[in-house]
Amino acid sequence: MEQIPLVTLTTDFGTADGYVGTMKGVILSIAPDARLVDISHQIAPQDVRQAAYVVYTSYIFFPPRTVHLVVVDPGVGSARRPIALRTPVGAFVGPDNGVFSYVMAHEPVKALVELADPRYRLPELSHTFHGRDVFAPAAAHLAAGVPITALGPSVGDPVTFPPPRLEITPGGVTGEVLHVDRFGNVVTSIGVLGWSGEGGDEGGYELVLAPVFRGAGGGEPVRLRSEAGVVVVVVAGQEIAGVCRTYAEAERDQVLALAGSSGHLEIAVREGSAARRLGLRPGDVVELCLR
Amino acid sequence: MEQIPLVTLTTDFGTADGYVGTMKGVILSIAPDARLVDISHQIAPQDVRQAAYVVYTSYIFFPPRTVHLVVVDPGVGSARRPIALRTPVGAFVGPDNGVFSYVMAHEPVKALVELADPRYRLPELSHTFHGRDVFAPAAAHLAAGVPITALGPSVGDPVTFPPPRLEITPGGVTGEVLHVDRFGNVVTSIGVLGWSGEGGDEGGYELVLAPVFRGAGGGEPVRLRSEAGVVVVVVAGQEIAGVCRTYAEAERDQVLALAGSSGHLEIAVREGSAARRLGLRPGDVVELCLR
Amino acid sequence: MEQIPLVTLTTDFGTADGYVGTMKGVILSIAPDARLVDISHQIAPQDVRQAAYVVYTSYIFFPPRTVHLVVVDPGVGSARRPIALRTPVGAFVGPDNGVFSYVMAHEPVKALVELADPRYRLPELSHTFHGRDVFAPAAAHLAAGVPITALGPSVGDPVTFPPPRLEITPGGVTGEVLHVDRFGNVVTSIGVLGWSGEGGDEGGYELVLAPVFRGAGGGEPVRLRSEAGVVVVVVAGQEIAGVCRTYAEAERDQVLALAGSSGHLEIAVREGSAARRLGLRPGDVVELCLR
Repeated sequence: MEQIPLVTLTTDFGTADGYVGTMKGVILSIAPDARLVDISHQIAPQDVRQAAYVVYTSYIFFPPRTVHLVVVDPGVGSARRPIALRTPVGAFVGPDNGVFSYVMAHEPVKALVELADPRYRLPELSHTFHGRDVFAPAAAHLAAGVPITALGPSVGDPVTFPPPRLEITPGGVTGEVLHVDRFGNVVTSIGVLGWSGEGGDEGGYELVLAPVFRGAGGGEPVRLRSEAGVVVVVVAGQEIAGVCRTYAEAERDQVLALAGSSGHLEIAVREGSAARRLGLRPGDVVELCLR
Repeated sequence: MEQIPLVTLTTDFGTADGYVGTMKGVILSIAPDARLVDISHQIAPQDVRQAAYVVYTSYIFFPPRTVHLVVVDPGVGSARRPIALRTPVGAFVGPDNGVFSYVMAHEPVKALVELADPRYRLPELSHTFHGRDVFAPAAAHLAAGVPITALGPSVGDPVTFPPPRLEITPGGVTGEVLHVDRFGNVVTSIGVLGWSGEGGDEGGYELVLAPVFRGAGGGEPVRLRSEAGVVVVVVAGQEIAGVCRTYAEAERDQVLALAGSSGHLEIAVREGSAARRLGLRPGDVVELCLR
Repeated sequence: MEQIPLVTLTTDFGTADGYVGTMKGVILSIAPDARLVDISHQIAPQDVRQAAYVVYTSYIFFPPRTVHLVVVDPGVGSARRPIALRTPVGAFVGPDNGVFSYVMAHEPVKALVELADPRYRLPELSHTFHGRDVFAPAAAHLAAGVPITALGPSVGDPVTFPPPRLEITPGGVTGEVLHVDRFGNVVTSIGVLGWSGEGGDEGGYELVLAPVFRGAGGGEPVRLRSEAGVVVVVVAGQEIAGVCRTYAEAERDQVLALAGSSGHLEIAVREGSAARRLGLRPGDVVELCLR
């Protein structure tokens, strides 16, 4: 079966103004067969890091030929380059402002180009809406089968921001809050796969850290040894005992730490908002201590 | 013409975080031909009853082979079962927490199974995002033609919550507020089809109640006799005279009662919010009195 | 290649209640091949002018056979007519309340009919949800190939509201705020294409006004002469010097005027909200003065 071309959209445009609909009209005028999937249009205005996070948690669940269009673009109209890149699991189109940092930290980049060829833009270019005039056409042409190298010259020095804080010592891990979701769940930069080992006479437990944000390809899980099998999460001056598997292990309204759906340590309140309860925001420090 | 597989999505995930987009990636990876339609992702967090209402008012307008995926799942990770059911007018996939109560109150259930077969889940199961790992794959496989009985063993005792309050006496009906919509329109559990009869010497009018929430199949309309043809709706300590046909029958800013678009009695304010004006919320008592 | 039927949707229904999803079910039951694109469902409740603006800025980016379904309908259930119209660049379906005024100000109308034929409605008509019962079926039948003249009799006197304020004098232009977008950017009724001319000894500059809202077909650009090449935008008692090309020409947090993505003069704050900073709302006066 021939692949149906798929384009996802992630923007900070909101859904009130028709900007997203306009981009979709541009895409479907160029690639009438394309299937469009919204990832989010509620990225906080110009919050490139939030967009980077949301794209990073969703792209791997799409077929590998999918084109991911991301327009969070505070520098529109300035000298920042419009780019496209291809990895083994998808193509990505957007501004060269770091929004693909988290993808590039996990996937090898096969090609990365500047969107310079005017044949793959709208004929008239505005100075304020490159989502419509530059990025949507590029994504559509990619979806329609144009090779990425046709879009413009190769770029060797894409803008990336540093990976989130993640310091691993034998006694634990220090990370930071990456994202607060709709439910008030707080996602951290600390990857947690779970416990292994049996404890007791054999000599303690191991906490297995998922290989998030530690180099392209992901690397290997890291194992931290704990004699007593006790782990404490320290955040906002509070100690949370243990890492749960599910929300259901906590009482309603209780703060808990757990391994979230993307392999990251999360702070949550069962049927409540951990972000509001603890006053947490992206960038706040989170410590995981083994005892 | 072969049927295009259709999957609707109803969740409390919001549209900011990429959770819904991720589910769509999973569905399209399994069923690339599937067409996806969002019903709502703005269900109040963990409000199973609101989700049940929204699904109930929309499913009948879709083609009968549609798969309706509903993920409002406060018990994710607990022992609550993931289920799928088939009725003559659609298949439904979601947690076994009552979210299909209103559908099951109106449609005969042809099959109801637990989503137990690991072949129809993602290979790795998180404990917090069964929408992605369990429900989306099941909906996609159903859309792709897998028979519902392949998904797991039959379930004979699905969780349902009691139908909304609805007490019919010769003098009227007592019900409750089911839903407040975006406009502040207040939908009640009282079904109203309208008036019949001519009044006068022939002996009064009849108010015809629609068969909502009165048993699978819906039953017959109930007719209530009124000598004077006068009906009063009592809600939040206020009396509203009469049941209108349209918003346009009221003055701007006036409170009115009318037969809404799903056959339910609604309280509205023309070009305003009845919920805010009267302070109404789901569960509040509504009386319809014949005089 | 045969055209894939495309239907866009613009409403004030929000996305919480399932109203939009229900309309999509109706469309896909009638036209299973139709591709659906949301333009906006966050039009302020019953704000016909805002809907008119959003449709006007998006329709031209869609393929010319697209059907644009617009349901912002404060008069639902009253005598206002449901209509459909066809222009060279799209068909439009919605209430006859002026919502297509801005489209009709820019495109010639080839056909305009009342949606009167019951074959192209749902069999049972509610009095409060014509989006589902009248407009969605009409849009679907148009998308499926029914000729517009089959939907009902011709209408010669559609409701339109007057075009936005736009007074052009040799010394400048007086217009009004049309729209405030998600970022707080303030879109005005003044069309601006940019400067031409060289100034100096040759005798000044010309400011070229885009032909927005000046008659069907758009007319020709208007040229205003300025000896010094100085332009000042006066709004909310403030003077803004100059018209920029991009947000990037201003300092962060600075108020600027620029030619926006639809050719309209916009007031913006770089990485901030001009609407909040200046307290601007639709209808407020904006002056552009040449010096």
